Amino acid sequence: MEYRKIKDQDKDGDAGGEDIESSRGKAHSVGNVDVERTRWKRKSAVTIALTVLTSSQAILIVWSKRAGKYEYSVTTANFMVETLKCALSLAALARTWRSEGVTEDNRLNTTLDEVIVFPIPAALYLVKNLLQYYIFAYVDAPGYQILKNLNIISTGVLYRIILKKKLSEIQWAAFILLCAGCTTAQLKSNSDHVLQTPFQGWVMAIVMALLSGFAGVYTEAIIKKRPMRNINVQNFWLYVFGMIFNAGAILVQDFDAVMNKGFFHGYSFITVLMIVNHALSGIAVSMVMKYADNIVKVYSTSVAMLLTAVVSVFLFGFNLSLAFFLGSTVVSVAVYLHSAGKLQR
Amino acid sequence: MEYRKIKDQDKDGDAGGEDIESSRGKAHSVGNVDVERTRWKRKSAVTIALTVLTSSQAILIVWSKRAGKYEYSVTTANFMVETLKCALSLAALARTWRSEGVTEDNRLNTTLDEVIVFPIPAALYLVKNLLQYYIFAYVDAPGYQILKNLNIISTGVLYRIILKKKLSEIQWAAFILLCAGCTTAQLKSNSDHVLQTPFQGWVMAIVMALLSGFAGVYTEAIIKKRPMRNINVQNFWLYVFGMIFNAGAILVQDFDAVMNKGFFHGYSFITVLMIVNHALSGIAVSMVMKYADNIVKVYSTSVAMLLTAVVSVFLFGFNLSLAFFLGSTVVSVAVYLHSAGKLQR
Repeated sequence: MEYRKIKDQDKDGDAGGEDIESSRGKAHSVGNVDVERTRWKRKSAVTIALTVLTSSQAILIVWSKRAGKYEYSVTTANFMVETLKCALSLAALARTWRSEGVTEDNRLNTTLDEVIVFPIPAALYLVKNLLQYYIFAYVDAPGYQILKNLNIISTGVLYRIILKKKLSEIQWAAFILLCAGCTTAQLKSNSDHVLQTPFQGWVMAIVMALLSGFAGVYTEAIIKKRPMRNINVQNFWLYVFGMIFNAGAILVQDFDAVMNKGFFHGYSFITVLMIVNHALSGIAVSMVMKYADNIVKVYSTSVAMLLTAVVSVFLFGFNLSLAFFLGSTVVSVAVYLHSAGKLQR
Repeated sequence: MEYRKIKDQDKDGDAGGEDIESSRGKAHSVGNVDVERTRWKRKSAVTIALTVLTSSQAILIVWSKRAGKYEYSVTTANFMVETLKCALSLAALARTWRSEGVTEDNRLNTTLDEVIVFPIPAALYLVKNLLQYYIFAYVDAPGYQILKNLNIISTGVLYRIILKKKLSEIQWAAFILLCAGCTTAQLKSNSDHVLQTPFQGWVMAIVMALLSGFAGVYTEAIIKKRPMRNINVQNFWLYVFGMIFNAGAILVQDFDAVMNKGFFHGYSFITVLMIVNHALSGIAVSMVMKYADNIVKVYSTSVAMLLTAVVSVFLFGFNLSLAFFLGSTVVSVAVYLHSAGKLQR
């Protein structure tokens, strides 16, 4: 098959951008350099988009909390996010079809072989979200925020094991620093009680980190498995299963509320903004999986967390703690080390 | 002059031990490898000694505080520390004279040219200690502990500027991490008020960090200026000036107390232990300056700070905070990066 060859090429070209750096010394045709520059630009664009969307997402959440509680059903909002993502993918596809025509790579119909793996990430997230209800028996919400940083480590380990991509020793050190720095930046005066988390709480936190890391890495694997396949087709199928799973959640959890008060009860302008933002961030995550990788995603969302805190100072008059400055310093050094520590090829 | 040549050799051999690592690939005579192995062992021994002595020093301080206040004069204790260091240096010299005879390198008498620079570090520390009284108008004691971590950065910068030794970019990153990690490990729930330190407080903290960094780097410079000169002779002269400066401090500060209550009033077993410990740590610092450098000293005392906290858990039932674990992680990664980031020669 022709695309298997291209796939392997692409595999080399997607491991954190190091190819672009290390190949500068090698002899390359002008065409290749152009292809790499385009890839680099695309990768940077999706990474920046993800960072900006993730940080504005957190700011919208703070804003909505300040504006008072809205009694909308979270499950219907999640369903709307998936629906919007589906619609946006279809709109992007329609444009492609008009300009390039329908080809093998961008046609919507699919094979069972291609589509059978797409429900798996959605199912993993569902299990993780179910566990979330139980972990609060052992940890409170601020403690859970701290423990969520275990995701960083689990993503790194699973990325290494499942995608078999190597990080240099310096990059592993940077990843540990990223986790420590993010946690430090989130320290509150009462964070120490996290250390009193009972054994079951730790086990659940680790399982949840593994589930979420696995879902991320698995999504990258299925999106990268067919590198020539149009990303919008892949997204369409991912989001269709997201719609199905979330429709199930509405039935199980909010059926009565939807029946009595209506599907869109309690929606406000800010709810709509949050849905649009979540949909765009979701698409940005898929794009990062396609054109970069989970490591870039983790760095991008960590930097977004810091950006959120800084922006909140101006928007909501929050104070930055000394721990935040120290954590931000460590995260910044980690970002530097990740790029300085690229594997020499 | 013959020793100028040896000095330059030594200069290459003292920059953080990287010579030992990077020279492995080069062709070397067996003799050279032996010399380097001896150097490496000596350097490791003094570094470990400094780490152990510094951490036991902090533990003795905690112990003496727990045991209740002893009303001894701090100036007489400091004078005794300098006297003991002098005596120990002389004892070591006497052994050398018996085994090797008196040579140009180990004779005690000196030239004005050699000895004129020795009072400078003692004078710098004196100015720093005087400033210490004034900074407490702007910062409290726990806040001062946090600000003291600026020493790490000032030592690195002055080491680079004055001794003209290079650190790699990774090693600079490691140094920033060391500073951030040590500060994180010392975070208390009320550490945030350090951020409210007024401008004068910051200026004084930075000046004090520069003075203490400069004193350290300057000591290294004068000890390394004559690499073949016996370290015990160099120490003897350093400590003689320490005795003179501290005798002055007794006259200015504690003259009445010493006259009325006696020189050794308020001394206890633990006071004696602390004096012995301070004297041995002081000698270890000189040895690290001779056989390693200020960078090794900073890493060694930072690791000692962490060791102290861990040992205090067992000895005094202290609790370790989440911030301590995060800070320790960052410091450990910094130590790893410092050695992983050695300059390739």
